[in-house]
Amino acid sequence: MLDVCLLGTGGMMPLPYRWLTSLMMRYNGHGILIDCGEGTQIALKEKGWSPNPIDIICFTHYHADHISGLPGMLLTMGNAERTQPLLLIGPKGLQRVVSALRVIAPEIPFELQYCELTENSHTISFPDFRLEAFKVNHNVVCYGYSMVIERCGRFQVEKAVKLGLEKQYWGRLQKGETIELDGSVYTPEMVLGEPRKGLKVTYTTDTRPTESIVTNAEGADLFICEGMYGEPDKLEKAREHKHMTFYEAAQMARKANVQEMWLTHYSPSLPRPEEYMEEVRKIFPNAIAARDGRTAELKFEEK
Amino acid sequence: MLDVCLLGTGGMMPLPYRWLTSLMMRYNGHGILIDCGEGTQIALKEKGWSPNPIDIICFTHYHADHISGLPGMLLTMGNAERTQPLLLIGPKGLQRVVSALRVIAPEIPFELQYCELTENSHTISFPDFRLEAFKVNHNVVCYGYSMVIERCGRFQVEKAVKLGLEKQYWGRLQKGETIELDGSVYTPEMVLGEPRKGLKVTYTTDTRPTESIVTNAEGADLFICEGMYGEPDKLEKAREHKHMTFYEAAQMARKANVQEMWLTHYSPSLPRPEEYMEEVRKIFPNAIAARDGRTAELKFEEK
Repeated sequence: MLDVCLLGTGGMMPLPYRWLTSLMMRYNGHGILIDCGEGTQIALKEKGWSPNPIDIICFTHYHADHISGLPGMLLTMGNAERTQPLLLIGPKGLQRVVSALRVIAPEIPFELQYCELTENSHTISFPDFRLEAFKVNHNVVCYGYSMVIERCGRFQVEKAVKLGLEKQYWGRLQKGETIELDGSVYTPEMVLGEPRKGLKVTYTTDTRPTESIVTNAEGADLFICEGMYGEPDKLEKAREHKHMTFYEAAQMARKANVQEMWLTHYSPSLPRPEEYMEEVRKIFPNAIAARDGRTAELKFEEK
Repeated sequence: MLDVCLLGTGGMMPLPYRWLTSLMMRYNGHGILIDCGEGTQIALKEKGWSPNPIDIICFTHYHADHISGLPGMLLTMGNAERTQPLLLIGPKGLQRVVSALRVIAPEIPFELQYCELTENSHTISFPDFRLEAFKVNHNVVCYGYSMVIERCGRFQVEKAVKLGLEKQYWGRLQKGETIELDGSVYTPEMVLGEPRKGLKVTYTTDTRPTESIVTNAEGADLFICEGMYGEPDKLEKAREHKHMTFYEAAQMARKANVQEMWLTHYSPSLPRPEEYMEEVRKIFPNAIAARDGRTAELKFEEK
């Protein structure tokens, strides 16, 4: 199960009733945070989630509303006596930006690791999931991210039996290992059915609509997308500031065939995003104007 | 009238129910903020006060919980199209620290001015008030601040009449100007009574008790002082981390003959500071365990 919590839904500046946009995901003991603006650590605590399992923080870009909460988050993690390393992922310049911010957080008792993004797209693989970073179109270099969990096919006992494979080797094959026994090679494909549908969450903020988003969000279970403006007459403003309207986000959701879209990163001038959703749902029916703390528990399909 | 609002009362890290310690004062169109941790701009907005009048931000020291909110605050001020300069006051290193933090807030449409503190005490004078900075005792260089408003004596009409001074000059003398007329010199003292009691607010956090605090808080209308720990058995911990217990703060309030003391900068481990106030008030009766947003309107004495 993949736990997803959109900790905040604000853009530009934090407000008393709206934290800055940040996404926390929990899967198999891992914690992945995307963006960490001023107050993100409070939003997390308000939600009742701990920062301890966070082992990866991804940054879309280095505008303050997406990273200003990092020094405080690092210190809070340090105060909890964390020792495990923390991997930071973000556009080129990551180490320089983080080092500058650490002028007020110089001493932390765990290691920071850096993965700087330089290409149009990157795949960062972990044993049980991968992150896909893809460049989007803002007024500074900015990336979107997909969290992708693949799921192998069902173990087919009859095939294993037919091959004469002892039960003790089944588990390793199921986990993807190839096994050599007495000169014979057994690959997972020999005992597994067709790969089953996995899980995918795509997150993008601070961008105009792009092909890279549509491609990367293709078939996502959840597409979390910026919607800076709900008012239809703000399209020009969205273009100028390299943001999106709700309708542009919905068009991408439709093109990408996602299951569900959550809008986020609202302008401080937009207190009631719900007001525009009727029109948005004409473009993409499964669209939700997310509010702070919106949670989903994404489960693998039963079959 | 001097408006005072203790925006937050937390130390170390912001919590869902407690902003980081920060003091906002408003006087005669000026806004003075002391400390600006993560979330201070939200606390200010929650209180309904605008950041626009802030023309001075003082920092006690550069631990993150006292300055991590600065980049966001600067950007929010900039988004409100501020053009007037902002004076920053803090220990030596101020410009280096602020410049580092501005890696995520490089473009702001107003000037930053820096006043770096290097001595044991500094007086920074403005036309209608002054700030007194005084070194305290923490594990890094740290200062406390007093906001001091002096008040001249009452204008004594009979003296002005006796001197044969025309009415048009009265106002200038009352404002402290010296006037020369036909070879005669008229000073404010010639027409004003004894200086009347002004207003003083003293603020200090992140320190052991010091003589400098007692001296500088002497006779203050309001003394805002850190109380990291309420539990009497945490004195050793307070000593170790260079903080104070409630009782130590109360002893200083008593020695300094202040009118009222507000405790602040509570440890995250201290959810209910009120529990310890009975004992604290045995030392200094006018002691209050402040909560976020506590406000006072300090008025000049009527006489």
